[in-house]
Amino acid sequence: MSFLKFLLGEKKSSASVAKERLQLIITHEREEGSTGAPDFLPQLQKDLIEVISKYIKINEQDLKVNVDKHGNLEVLEVKIEMPQDPKNAVAKAG
Amino acid sequence: MSFLKFLLGEKKSSASVAKERLQLIITHEREEGSTGAPDFLPQLQKDLIEVISKYIKINEQDLKVNVDKHGNLEVLEVKIEMPQDPKNAVAKAG
Repeated sequence: MSFLKFLLGEKKSSASVAKERLQLIITHEREEGSTGAPDFLPQLQKDLIEVISKYIKINEQDLKVNVDKHGNLEVLEVKIEMPQDPKNAVAKAG
Repeated sequence: MSFLKFLLGEKKSSASVAKERLQLIITHEREEGSTGAPDFLPQLQKDLIEVISKYIKINEQDLKVNVDKHGNLEVLEVKIEMPQDPKNAVAKAG
């Protein structure tokens, strides 16, 4: 199943989108039994949010970060709700 | 269903992990009916890959990019297979 279908399945609960949202998911799958390499995900996450804030205004309270680990698979989810301000205001008129 | 469960469901097909993998997924959900805001995802994708390449060595041929759109939802997937070289080599011994 493609990730888009997965997302659309999740979306049924929120019929209309009141706020613009950006979601960043990073998955890191290590080789079986590999333990040595340092975990760069926490620092990578900070850098990626910094890059995103070049494009959209991010308020701390609109940022949700979730980390999941399962064996050699690590998933980092960053959810950003974009505030309704002039910079993000969408040209409603016309 | 959490994204991790979705991923684990997908993983059954590849039992063991021969190569280390990193996957980046960006979803952008616009407000219903919003059309004005410029699409920043393509440029954001370039910037994010540049940030990631600070942490891992990325070869063009190991990079797969996929863009999906469905109504006001846009999904950008970047899959990176990490090559087996010294910099990524995992301390197998010891």
